[in-house]
Amino acid sequence: MADRNPPARPGSEAPSLPARPTIYDVAERAGVSKSLVSLVLRDAPHVSDARRLAVLNAIEELGYRPSRAASALASQRTRSVGVLIDDFHNPWFVELLGGLRSVLDPAGYTVSVADFQLEAASGRNPVDGFIAQHVDALVLAAEPEEGLLRDVSVPVVVAGVRELGSGALPHADVVAGDDELGGELATRHLLDLGHRAIAHISGRSGPAAHRRRGYERTMRGAGLASRVVGADRTTTEAEGYAAAHELFAEHPEITALVASNDLMAVGTFAALRERGLSVPADVAVVGYDNSPLAAYRYLALTSVDPHSREIGAETARTLLSRLDDPGAPRRHALIEPSLVVRESTAPRG
Amino acid sequence: MADRNPPARPGSEAPSLPARPTIYDVAERAGVSKSLVSLVLRDAPHVSDARRLAVLNAIEELGYRPSRAASALASQRTRSVGVLIDDFHNPWFVELLGGLRSVLDPAGYTVSVADFQLEAASGRNPVDGFIAQHVDALVLAAEPEEGLLRDVSVPVVVAGVRELGSGALPHADVVAGDDELGGELATRHLLDLGHRAIAHISGRSGPAAHRRRGYERTMRGAGLASRVVGADRTTTEAEGYAAAHELFAEHPEITALVASNDLMAVGTFAALRERGLSVPADVAVVGYDNSPLAAYRYLALTSVDPHSREIGAETARTLLSRLDDPGAPRRHALIEPSLVVRESTAPRG
Repeated sequence: MADRNPPARPGSEAPSLPARPTIYDVAERAGVSKSLVSLVLRDAPHVSDARRLAVLNAIEELGYRPSRAASALASQRTRSVGVLIDDFHNPWFVELLGGLRSVLDPAGYTVSVADFQLEAASGRNPVDGFIAQHVDALVLAAEPEEGLLRDVSVPVVVAGVRELGSGALPHADVVAGDDELGGELATRHLLDLGHRAIAHISGRSGPAAHRRRGYERTMRGAGLASRVVGADRTTTEAEGYAAAHELFAEHPEITALVASNDLMAVGTFAALRERGLSVPADVAVVGYDNSPLAAYRYLALTSVDPHSREIGAETARTLLSRLDDPGAPRRHALIEPSLVVRESTAPRG
Repeated sequence: MADRNPPARPGSEAPSLPARPTIYDVAERAGVSKSLVSLVLRDAPHVSDARRLAVLNAIEELGYRPSRAASALASQRTRSVGVLIDDFHNPWFVELLGGLRSVLDPAGYTVSVADFQLEAASGRNPVDGFIAQHVDALVLAAEPEEGLLRDVSVPVVVAGVRELGSGALPHADVVAGDDELGGELATRHLLDLGHRAIAHISGRSGPAAHRRRGYERTMRGAGLASRVVGADRTTTEAEGYAAAHELFAEHPEITALVASNDLMAVGTFAALRERGLSVPADVAVVGYDNSPLAAYRYLALTSVDPHSREIGAETARTLLSRLDDPGAPRRHALIEPSLVVRESTAPRG
């Protein structure tokens, strides 16, 4: 199939590469020294307005792009932040990233994202990649294997995952969701709807452990027995499906489920349908993350919203403060979650 | 809530930053010049094995990390590739990225991802960000506004989106899915199941236009009338939902739908349920992308698989060839899709 041939427009010149203007071209055009151009690029004080303007005009006229690599050597700052996530497949990071950008973009920082999942398969370490690119700071929104964060020489802010703040990175700032409170909100909602036989489908991550504790604490407070499955498993759709089948095979009296994330909740939907149980008439289901998944009309999942966008914005503010004052006391912030009620929960029948 | 206090482990030193070993430290330790260390770092020929070994040992002993910024200035290559996507919310890029990495990681390239969606909101241009970071090449897996790609001075390979190859970037290499064939596969599958009243829910993107042409061509070939809605709208879950309601309000005789992506297909599920129609007994539905969504047991969506992982791997191979030979003829590759049949399609009742 031939492509249509619209009129050619000015676009990329690849593969024929035009010569890029250099800092020397800018200096010549502005009639100043290369060092002075560097000073202007670094926004250094003690440069006269006239000379600053001459340099800025030359930059504009030549279409000069300051080389980030050169600036890095000159100023020790690349104005870039690397974000490390576990896996692009789990979309919880998307809102977090939006929040990070809402603060870092206006501050002039470039944000790029890499994940442990894909790189690990090929034996590469994305932390080394970012360090070699001279990022000013890292945001760790993941739970990497121990050892990957050794020798990190830039500030790290842990986003969303509380445990790392006290474990692998004892000095790092932490901005996390209050997952224990979230587990409590989900469970209390079901108790308020009259449910008593409420089970929990958990996973082996740090956040999952906190959500589980919130569930257990709330059940205990109501004088009810906890019933947890999957605390040693991954938090996938497939595990949610398997866990729901196990639970109902042994405990058909269950009328409500708290799942550790939305993906697992969607897995339980399939198992319940196969067992002839309808949501929410026979079984009420609550997810966690308030991901795009939860909002699809066909799923309409009640879900705990960790306010990931706010976690991202607070992480960015923490990071900028840390860059300004490396010696400031360590910060540990917890963001309060809330519950978004949709159609997957209803009063006990 | 206090965190537990596990024993401190050696971790990041942030916020107290230890001094990083420099190239001078490596040179001193190895008893060679700084220039020779640079040569070894660039893997240059004509360095004796003994001196190369001395440098490599010094690097290891000191825990030296070559500065990517310094290497960039020395060698004009940062060995990094920037990937531009439209929006992190649409997960089709995840498999593409896996394919890119499968080739670029072993070749020693760092891959990072930025999107037009979030940065556009703050007026920043992620293309400028990547260029300023001195990436060696860009992968464009998006349909950005015109103008954002002006003056790009590194090779660009367009991945997944055919139109850009002939429009905004007339010289760029292109590796895309054959979306027209994909539209044909989806429609032919429904014809083979005995369906005749087959409607198509489209969108305004380049790939959606190709999928639509494949549907129309196949209907015409079977002597049947095409019925398309949504060609001027976005390809979201909400639009899929609205389009299905419109279609069935006017044409209750429809027995099958081809949706332009999985997200829209999931939107149709909700509309069909509201109209008392079941999938696939009353209406068969085919999606496109074979995204994780399609595989969830609760959705079990028949979907066209564009083989995004293969598109990513081929994009990476094309990019490495382009870097080796900037003057080589432009490449335009189309990857053949296939159909993955699940539970959302069945013979016409």
